[in-house]
Amino acid sequence: MQSADLSQAYRDYIACLNRKDWNALPNFVGEDVRHNGQQLGIAGYQGMLEKDFLIMPDLFFRIELLVANPSLIASRLSFDCTPVGTFLGLPVNGRKVQFTENVFYIYREDKIREVWSVIDKAAIEAQLVTV
Amino acid sequence: MQSADLSQAYRDYIACLNRKDWNALPNFVGEDVRHNGQQLGIAGYQGMLEKDFLIMPDLFFRIELLVANPSLIASRLSFDCTPVGTFLGLPVNGRKVQFTENVFYIYREDKIREVWSVIDKAAIEAQLVTV
Repeated sequence: MQSADLSQAYRDYIACLNRKDWNALPNFVGEDVRHNGQQLGIAGYQGMLEKDFLIMPDLFFRIELLVANPSLIASRLSFDCTPVGTFLGLPVNGRKVQFTENVFYIYREDKIREVWSVIDKAAIEAQLVTV
Repeated sequence: MQSADLSQAYRDYIACLNRKDWNALPNFVGEDVRHNGQQLGIAGYQGMLEKDFLIMPDLFFRIELLVANPSLIASRLSFDCTPVGTFLGLPVNGRKVQFTENVFYIYREDKIREVWSVIDKAAIEAQLVTV
C-alpha cells in the first residue's frame, strides 16, 4: 500500500476505535497482532481496547501527528478523558486528565501486525500532583 | 528535503549526539527549537542533552524504528544505560536499565524545530521493582 493509502487506512482504524466498532476491527488488525512485544492476537487486542473504554468511558483517540511509509506508521495521539479508578497504576479516580501516546504500527499485508506504544505517564502524574 | 535525505540527516544528528559533538549541533537543530511545547532554543536544548549525559555517562542513542516524510520524522530510540542518582524522578541510583523513547521531530528548512518526545517511564519503574 502507498503511504497516502496507509495513512487513510490508519485514520479509518482510529475512527473504528472511536465508534467501538469491534466487528470492523479485523479489517485493520492482523490475527497475530503483537503489542509492545507481547503476542496478544486480535482477541487479546480487542480485550485491551474494551478494558481501556471501561476504565475511560469518555475515551477518544485524536491524531495529532502522523507519518507513514508503505509498511510503518507513527502517530502521536492525544487524549482528554476521565479514567475511573486506577490508570497505569496511578490513582486518577475520576479526574479529567490530558495525555499523549507516541505509537508505531508495523503493517504487513495492509494490517497492523506490531504496535510499539509509549504513553506519557509522567504527564498524568504531574496533573495528579497539582490538586 | 526528500524523505530519504531527511532520514540520513536524522541519522547524522543521532551520530552527532552519540559523539557529544556540540559544535555540530547547529547543523541539525534550529536556533528556536521547542521541546515538548517548551521554547528551549538551541542553547537550552544542548543543556538538556549535556545534563542527560551527566546523569547517564554511558548514554547511547540507538534507532530502532524510523519513518519520515519531507517535514516530519518519527523515531523509536532504545537505551541501555546506567543513570546515576535520580532519573525522571525515579531512584535508579546506578542500576542498568533498558527503556525506549518514541519521538517526533518537526523539521523546517532542514533543521529540527519541534520535538515531541515520550519516554517509557513505566518500563524503568518495572525494572526497579524487580530487585
